[in-house]
Amino acid sequence: MNKKMIRYIVGKMLGVEAALLLLPALVGAIFRERSALSFLATAAVLLVVFLCTGLKKPESTTIYAKEGLVVVALAWILWSLFGALPFFLSHSIPNYLDAFFETVSGFTTTGSTILTDVEALPKGMAFWRSFTHWVGGMGVLVFVMVLTTLDKKNSMYLMRAEVPGPEKDKLLPKARSTAQLLYGMYLALTIVEILFLLFGGMNLFDSLIHAFGTAGTGGFSNYAASVAHFDSTYIHVVITVFMILFGINFNLYFFLLHRDFRSVFKNGELRVYLSVIFVSALLITLNIVHMYGNPFVAFRDAMFQVGSIITTTGYTTADFNLWPEFSKCILMLLMVLGACASSTGGGIKVSRGIIMLKSIHKEIKQMMHPKSVNVVRMNGKKLGKDIVQNVYIYLMAYVVIVAASVLILSLDNYDFGTTFSAVLATLNNIGPGMGAVGPVGSFAGFSPLSKIVLCLDMLAGRLEIFPFLMLFSLTWKKTFYVSKKILYEGVT
Amino acid sequence: MNKKMIRYIVGKMLGVEAALLLLPALVGAIFRERSALSFLATAAVLLVVFLCTGLKKPESTTIYAKEGLVVVALAWILWSLFGALPFFLSHSIPNYLDAFFETVSGFTTTGSTILTDVEALPKGMAFWRSFTHWVGGMGVLVFVMVLTTLDKKNSMYLMRAEVPGPEKDKLLPKARSTAQLLYGMYLALTIVEILFLLFGGMNLFDSLIHAFGTAGTGGFSNYAASVAHFDSTYIHVVITVFMILFGINFNLYFFLLHRDFRSVFKNGELRVYLSVIFVSALLITLNIVHMYGNPFVAFRDAMFQVGSIITTTGYTTADFNLWPEFSKCILMLLMVLGACASSTGGGIKVSRGIIMLKSIHKEIKQMMHPKSVNVVRMNGKKLGKDIVQNVYIYLMAYVVIVAASVLILSLDNYDFGTTFSAVLATLNNIGPGMGAVGPVGSFAGFSPLSKIVLCLDMLAGRLEIFPFLMLFSLTWKKTFYVSKKILYEGVT
Repeated sequence: MNKKMIRYIVGKMLGVEAALLLLPALVGAIFRERSALSFLATAAVLLVVFLCTGLKKPESTTIYAKEGLVVVALAWILWSLFGALPFFLSHSIPNYLDAFFETVSGFTTTGSTILTDVEALPKGMAFWRSFTHWVGGMGVLVFVMVLTTLDKKNSMYLMRAEVPGPEKDKLLPKARSTAQLLYGMYLALTIVEILFLLFGGMNLFDSLIHAFGTAGTGGFSNYAASVAHFDSTYIHVVITVFMILFGINFNLYFFLLHRDFRSVFKNGELRVYLSVIFVSALLITLNIVHMYGNPFVAFRDAMFQVGSIITTTGYTTADFNLWPEFSKCILMLLMVLGACASSTGGGIKVSRGIIMLKSIHKEIKQMMHPKSVNVVRMNGKKLGKDIVQNVYIYLMAYVVIVAASVLILSLDNYDFGTTFSAVLATLNNIGPGMGAVGPVGSFAGFSPLSKIVLCLDMLAGRLEIFPFLMLFSLTWKKTFYVSKKILYEGVT
Repeated sequence: MNKKMIRYIVGKMLGVEAALLLLPALVGAIFRERSALSFLATAAVLLVVFLCTGLKKPESTTIYAKEGLVVVALAWILWSLFGALPFFLSHSIPNYLDAFFETVSGFTTTGSTILTDVEALPKGMAFWRSFTHWVGGMGVLVFVMVLTTLDKKNSMYLMRAEVPGPEKDKLLPKARSTAQLLYGMYLALTIVEILFLLFGGMNLFDSLIHAFGTAGTGGFSNYAASVAHFDSTYIHVVITVFMILFGINFNLYFFLLHRDFRSVFKNGELRVYLSVIFVSALLITLNIVHMYGNPFVAFRDAMFQVGSIITTTGYTTADFNLWPEFSKCILMLLMVLGACASSTGGGIKVSRGIIMLKSIHKEIKQMMHPKSVNVVRMNGKKLGKDIVQNVYIYLMAYVVIVAASVLILSLDNYDFGTTFSAVLATLNNIGPGMGAVGPVGSFAGFSPLSKIVLCLDMLAGRLEIFPFLMLFSLTWKKTFYVSKKILYEGVT
């Protein structure tokens, strides 16, 4: 493994984080908050680390898949560890583990919070908290790639590990320019949303916060009531529409830019995604209309919550915890499904769901006619066995992680709905769950062990499980090896 | 499709069921119960059906996988439809859907009940209810095969569809003699258990009921308190041991008969199965000991409940609903895991769990070293890609069925723990779940729609999903075709 190169890339990344911290420092300064100093202190620490590790390029710059995965996993963990420092140093979040949880939740665009009084946060801190969503949305490494130069071949391995979805090949040939184009479109869409929100009478600060949360499909708000704070159908509708837009495969925006409307229209994942949103919202409306009286208000709230959950954003305009079990179950299923591949959303992704159902269908056909040849197709193209295989393994790892996490969390003795939905809400990077971790609740009540597990779930969910499992299997092996050495050879 | 042959085999099977019904009729007669007449009435109906369809062998007796799967699915549904008649005719269960639920639960060895006062059941009915467990344990078709003669080639397709587990090839060459040997060992083990129970002071009737329930890993008892009715550590231990024995792969008993102890000792699935039982019971003991005071009683109850749930039997000696969430979560995970392949137990099976974990491990290795060749091994042997693939598809279909069932059940507005565990308890053929369907509860409160869904789950679970899905896809296609015809051509 090319450790020097890993250290070099990671060092470079931490330098970028130092630069990013100047933005919330500026916001803090504008609002004349003393806590803004903690951003500068953290930036100084990161600068020192950068100067020590990220300046001198090593002689051998070749890295492979393994190094790529390690860099990606390390990047997210280190950014979160350092990103938590301002909250901790300013006593905005006095417990470091809680600050880490909040930062992981930010970068992974989860939006789960341990804060019980979010409105007490200084403006600079609230800005940083939401800005992590925006940066994390497209991937912290893709972000670094936009700003720095890395060899083409290396970028490929990094991007492969970080961009969500089962098929990545299209993006690969020119990783860096692709990254720039991605962030360009991402920035443009965010600015359009900010303008729409300003037009609706929202102030600039709130508009930035909520556009960051929508774009990254994160869900942090600076109000305890989330988007319900704004008593305006216009704002609810704008945020609903943009949440759904940010949940669409970004490749489709490429097509739109090239006026290739046919590819967009014929995209199977997009059709299923929009149908699922519409059908779910309709079913929920029918299920909750008796609580609202007005079917239009019921539909508006249903659409918002469905859009928020399927895109794994996690904003709320209604406490769905009070809805009937059927509506809650639909939302839980949408939590697992998630948004489209190559979007900022989390979950197992609509395309994986389609591949899963098509495989089952294929298998039934195969059982009926054992000698026939059946293949799984997507958008008219035959899917390679390795992609299908990869989807299977991903789903199985997903099930195993859910099971293990639920088991550990159950030690805290919350009811099953709370425990189960807390795991789903973090692993799928959604934010709020049901029960005690519902829209009006928080994750503050969990034990430190559970909080660590939930942090790992958020990271595993954002990195689509494997880079993360790999880093752990490497660490375990090393720990195993070291402890074996100590056991057999004695401590030297 | 060879429809004549399907009708012939199904007719034969119904004749066998007519014969089986004479046994509970006899029990009813011994206890001088009028309700015993309903067994004779049902048997008469079945006899007529048999005489019309099951006597004349069709000219072409060749069937293939497709026919095999259809026959198996039909067999279970028809046996349940007719087997429910005695309960209904005698007014023991006045609602036919409830009677069907109870019979499906019996044949599929689930043990979920809609009865709220099980002790009010006439003796003959209680006997029939538990006897369905025993017959269903090894598969109703394997049972028919023992009693009738079918072509070797045809038996193969039937057996492949019915015997649980991912690998079936070993059993195939001589399907009929294998079936006889299987039922021979099954009978022998059941008799040994009856003797042990009699020795502990249980009367003959109760011994039969509980041996049937243990052997089929079903779990119906004739007492409301289940096995807790017997205040005897001896009886608890005997049933614990036999539940675990019936959850072991029956191939291993073959090996034992041939004094091949090495194969038994080296069997990976057996090792994992026993380790999981022991570790789970230990963790639960630690978690519940404060409720018991006495650690030995806590361990005895933990072992019983773990043995009962992992083998999907469903007997209880303690209301685990009152245990802490951690213990309940362990039990829920064991519900999903289930027993060994080719045992009478349900669930996804320990061997599938092992293949799943090994595949994930393989994939991580593959990601680290993309050019290396990694294979999944089991008991030292390389697993074919089709077996691994089959496990993936099975698990995905499993997840889809759980999701769909939970969604429909949630319309009844029970809490999530109840809904989720009701689906797991039926799909894995366990019996009791948590919450309202816990050890002291019943499934009586669900709506008719939910009961139908749970019946389908029990059947899908027992038949390992695919034969069942296939039957449905055939039916759907037909309905589709017919309704299309009506739409386009008008009713003629």
